[in-house]
Amino acid sequence: MAKIKPGKNTSKKEVIIKSASVLFRTRGFSAATMRELAEAVGVEAPSLYNHIGSKSEILQAICFKVANAFNDQLAAIETQQVNTISKLEHIIRFHIQMMMNYYDEVFVANHDWKHLEEPYLSNFLMQRRNYEKRLVAIMEEGIRKKECKNLNPFVVVLTMLSAVRGLEFWQRHKKNISVKVLEDDMVNQLLKGITAK
Amino acid sequence: MAKIKPGKNTSKKEVIIKSASVLFRTRGFSAATMRELAEAVGVEAPSLYNHIGSKSEILQAICFKVANAFNDQLAAIETQQVNTISKLEHIIRFHIQMMMNYYDEVFVANHDWKHLEEPYLSNFLMQRRNYEKRLVAIMEEGIRKKECKNLNPFVVVLTMLSAVRGLEFWQRHKKNISVKVLEDDMVNQLLKGITAK
Repeated sequence: MAKIKPGKNTSKKEVIIKSASVLFRTRGFSAATMRELAEAVGVEAPSLYNHIGSKSEILQAICFKVANAFNDQLAAIETQQVNTISKLEHIIRFHIQMMMNYYDEVFVANHDWKHLEEPYLSNFLMQRRNYEKRLVAIMEEGIRKKECKNLNPFVVVLTMLSAVRGLEFWQRHKKNISVKVLEDDMVNQLLKGITAK
Repeated sequence: MAKIKPGKNTSKKEVIIKSASVLFRTRGFSAATMRELAEAVGVEAPSLYNHIGSKSEILQAICFKVANAFNDQLAAIETQQVNTISKLEHIIRFHIQMMMNYYDEVFVANHDWKHLEEPYLSNFLMQRRNYEKRLVAIMEEGIRKKECKNLNPFVVVLTMLSAVRGLEFWQRHKKNISVKVLEDDMVNQLLKGITAK
């Protein structure tokens, strides 16, 4: 079999992570084997180990790649000098784009994080709780500034996160709806109801 | 061990189904054994088989009990002489109440339906697709009657269903928020954005 062929802008490790995301999503992390991964990448198993130590290490790479993407984006949004509804709109659109463009990675991070080993498991869960808290803080600020209705901030954040996470089912359906309509209509539905007049 | 003790208004089979829902949710359907179920019900395994044939049969009972509850409620709502937004509000509130009052059963139906055997698997999936289509039809009627904004009906339905399904995470968190606030705020957030002015 051939060597791992990285693309123009991707490292060999990134090629492995991408293939592993597809494999873990379709086969399940527990069932997937390093041999299957080698086949998917198109190399012999030993050559995989030149780039990555174990299945566990790949799962860590996937979960923290996804977590970092969300954290970095949120950090950028938090410092924007715009009103709360615009911030929430950016967040929703970013979640939808991640679901569309990095579906396999996001799916694995959403479902298989429970197979992370310590200390990665605790770290990942702490990051998720923090992410949720930062969203709640944005909503609380919006209520304080009277940019948002006085709804329970936790309920609002849960509803938003659940709605975007539900795009998993959407991916399975592959309905013929453009990402633009999806983004615009979800933003409309999720934000108009919480915007103060 | 004792005999299966039904409550005033519950049959022995219902007692078994309730215990099985808790067991399947916490242990996972595949891992759970009839012996564990017998222990949970508080009887010897052989006496379980007087009431129910197999683990598979119990899963069918749980999944179709949940499906029937949603179908019956939707059928009642479809015939109501109220506007579309009221219909959707009833549907959202019913989903939230089911999540709160029959959490174990709904969780098992949402996650373990894939372990159903044929012809039950196909039947269950057909019922789910139908349920979704009937919700889309309600939204389409609302757009036609100009009671709803002209949003993509499938996106609206997916957002609603995903948001209520996300209450799974809520159940795990057990935040100190009343069901009334939860219902009212979710209805507010999910419906104000789709209501035509």
